[in-house]
Amino acid sequence: MTQEPWTFPVAQRLEGVHSSPVRDILSIISRGDVISFAGGIPDADLFALEDLQAAFAHVLAHQGRRALQYASTEGEPELREQAAARVARNVPSTPEQIQVTSGSQEGLYLVGQALLDAGDVVLVERPTYLAAVQAFTLAGARIIGIPTDEHGVVPQELERLIGEHRPKFVYLIPTFQNPTGTTMPAPRRHQVAEILIRTGTVLVEDDPYGQLRFTGEPLAPITAHPGMARQSLLLNSLSKIVAPGIRVGWVRAEGPILRTIAIAKQAVGLQSAVVDQLAAAHYLATCDVDAHVRQVAAVYKERRDAMHAGLPHILPPAATITSPDGGMFLWARLGHGIDTAGLLPLAVEEGVAFVPGAPFYAHDPDHSTLRLSYVTNTPEVITEGLARLHRAIRSHLQEHRISEEPTSNNIR
Amino acid sequence: MTQEPWTFPVAQRLEGVHSSPVRDILSIISRGDVISFAGGIPDADLFALEDLQAAFAHVLAHQGRRALQYASTEGEPELREQAAARVARNVPSTPEQIQVTSGSQEGLYLVGQALLDAGDVVLVERPTYLAAVQAFTLAGARIIGIPTDEHGVVPQELERLIGEHRPKFVYLIPTFQNPTGTTMPAPRRHQVAEILIRTGTVLVEDDPYGQLRFTGEPLAPITAHPGMARQSLLLNSLSKIVAPGIRVGWVRAEGPILRTIAIAKQAVGLQSAVVDQLAAAHYLATCDVDAHVRQVAAVYKERRDAMHAGLPHILPPAATITSPDGGMFLWARLGHGIDTAGLLPLAVEEGVAFVPGAPFYAHDPDHSTLRLSYVTNTPEVITEGLARLHRAIRSHLQEHRISEEPTSNNIR
Repeated sequence: MTQEPWTFPVAQRLEGVHSSPVRDILSIISRGDVISFAGGIPDADLFALEDLQAAFAHVLAHQGRRALQYASTEGEPELREQAAARVARNVPSTPEQIQVTSGSQEGLYLVGQALLDAGDVVLVERPTYLAAVQAFTLAGARIIGIPTDEHGVVPQELERLIGEHRPKFVYLIPTFQNPTGTTMPAPRRHQVAEILIRTGTVLVEDDPYGQLRFTGEPLAPITAHPGMARQSLLLNSLSKIVAPGIRVGWVRAEGPILRTIAIAKQAVGLQSAVVDQLAAAHYLATCDVDAHVRQVAAVYKERRDAMHAGLPHILPPAATITSPDGGMFLWARLGHGIDTAGLLPLAVEEGVAFVPGAPFYAHDPDHSTLRLSYVTNTPEVITEGLARLHRAIRSHLQEHRISEEPTSNNIR
Repeated sequence: MTQEPWTFPVAQRLEGVHSSPVRDILSIISRGDVISFAGGIPDADLFALEDLQAAFAHVLAHQGRRALQYASTEGEPELREQAAARVARNVPSTPEQIQVTSGSQEGLYLVGQALLDAGDVVLVERPTYLAAVQAFTLAGARIIGIPTDEHGVVPQELERLIGEHRPKFVYLIPTFQNPTGTTMPAPRRHQVAEILIRTGTVLVEDDPYGQLRFTGEPLAPITAHPGMARQSLLLNSLSKIVAPGIRVGWVRAEGPILRTIAIAKQAVGLQSAVVDQLAAAHYLATCDVDAHVRQVAAVYKERRDAMHAGLPHILPPAATITSPDGGMFLWARLGHGIDTAGLLPLAVEEGVAFVPGAPFYAHDPDHSTLRLSYVTNTPEVITEGLARLHRAIRSHLQEHRISEEPTSNNIR
């Protein structure tokens, strides 16, 4: 019997959702000789490997059968306690206000499932974190970008868009934003909080990088603004300060929404891995993670310095770059009508990779932007990578006969 | 400023979804003196703790930085290889046909997200696994139960309901079903496969317990039927044969649907925990998991025997029970108009717990049913638990003035 080819039906919710271009680029550039500024990954050489080995060994030796058994959807008490203590540095929090998630990506997804109906609007920064848009889109949301300046979302624009769209929530990454690396200063945070409180708008505040600060004073999350915590869902992750391979993050929230999120989590996967939760809790309880993060930040700072100092020499004259005080990313706008998606293949040919900026925009992308991660390469390698990027940019400009004069703004 | 109480908006998809009654019962009966037949959990005392300790230690010692870093959404190659080799005992499979999931619950959820649009029908066994219904309902599906007999779904009913509802897929647990413990014999599997092929209907085949066989001959999954694999999604899990706390399972599929499932998984949580994936792969590669499962099954068999032999002495005359050849559950129908939800509080008072059967029905529940797990208690404890259950049943019958005569079928 000859059968017709088989095709599975695919749900409409997935028809508009594409694979993450970052993940796709990462798989293409697994070529060992490509210097990658593309990843959104921490430097594995800086992981506290011995401490984490000890934590896993301790858990399996002393809590082994518990660590291997089913457990609660909300998360292991020891981890919720550690998480609450960390959040409470800025926002009063109890362990009961912590829902453990498998990384903050799961947190974003669960928040979307818990709050969003088809057609609901979510306001996000322009540009914003790709996989958050992916998660909210899967929940049926329409994503609208809020214009930003060097201090984050523009308050007047935020208020205007809230009035126009009555969004289900506003999604912000106020500290060392992905992809731009910019940080919202305290006065702007207050303005934003006042608008959200006045308009009764939910805030989903994503803070995976906040502790990776190199320069400037620490800032409390917007959730810490008086009156804000009850209408905010604050997401943290251990991925950038401990390790992403253990998939440990959490959502801090108040009231019955926690129950709703837990029911969604039951359906999505019952619970997070117990071994990893207990190992993370043991590590946080017994090691000085803040000291570890300071060491990591000191190394990342040198790398940021190398990239930030080198970039102006290799970018076209009209290009602009951000000056991150922490986190992992730097954002460049090349101008000159350059489409960075077209630049990428030339760059990979030269042996360097980045992420084109367009996918980070919910709509109306600026095609001349790109995201550069500085954390996984040494200053020397960064310098070499920038030299390669320089060659790629020059080839691209020549290929498209684009003058490096700042007046030109079209691809011909 | 006095604020009105704050209420988060909740998505409609969660309004009809309740927390798992099993998880709720489990949290109520954490009282140490209650003998629990309620859990769907393996016996932690039988975990291969030393082998798993060694596997985690090996991975963190030899692949530590990789194990702690981000990795692919599809899963670690070593684990996909081990999974493919196990599936290939029945269905030819390559590592590329394996999508790693965080337990098979995540697999069920991803399958729902990938295939189901709002209003789509899913056909399930009557009764079926609660959390699968929860996952499919969150994706917007309407769940319709297929009448079953002691051999699983009734083929004529399956064909009739497919014709009537054009379901997006049929969800079956053919081996040691949850909650009934029944197994579909080979001839019935062939009949079901022929119907699914003839009608071009997708099968989602859930097989978490299949290897926990005590008696009878092993049966290939329905997916192994000639021509069936391409239109089937086969789900396996290590939760019942290795340990659930590591959250490792997989979906075996063919063709572009794998890409769709991977995109859904990106949005849900990027990837599964790498440490656990690599430890599971190392364990499967270096230990004799089949020998381990045989040991576990031998212990579970004694417990099944104790429960199966004891139950007829304590249940009312008209009650029926299933005779599982493996897995974890036994299903009883008490008849006599008994509502097992009303029986449960009396049972807990006597110091024994079970799961009332009604929630396992997608609709039109049989309230006189209940699920009993025999795997976490020794034969002696099972005997004591059954004595307690006997007292609870007698109290319940007296309280409701129900005669133990099989003719009565009303609660007065």
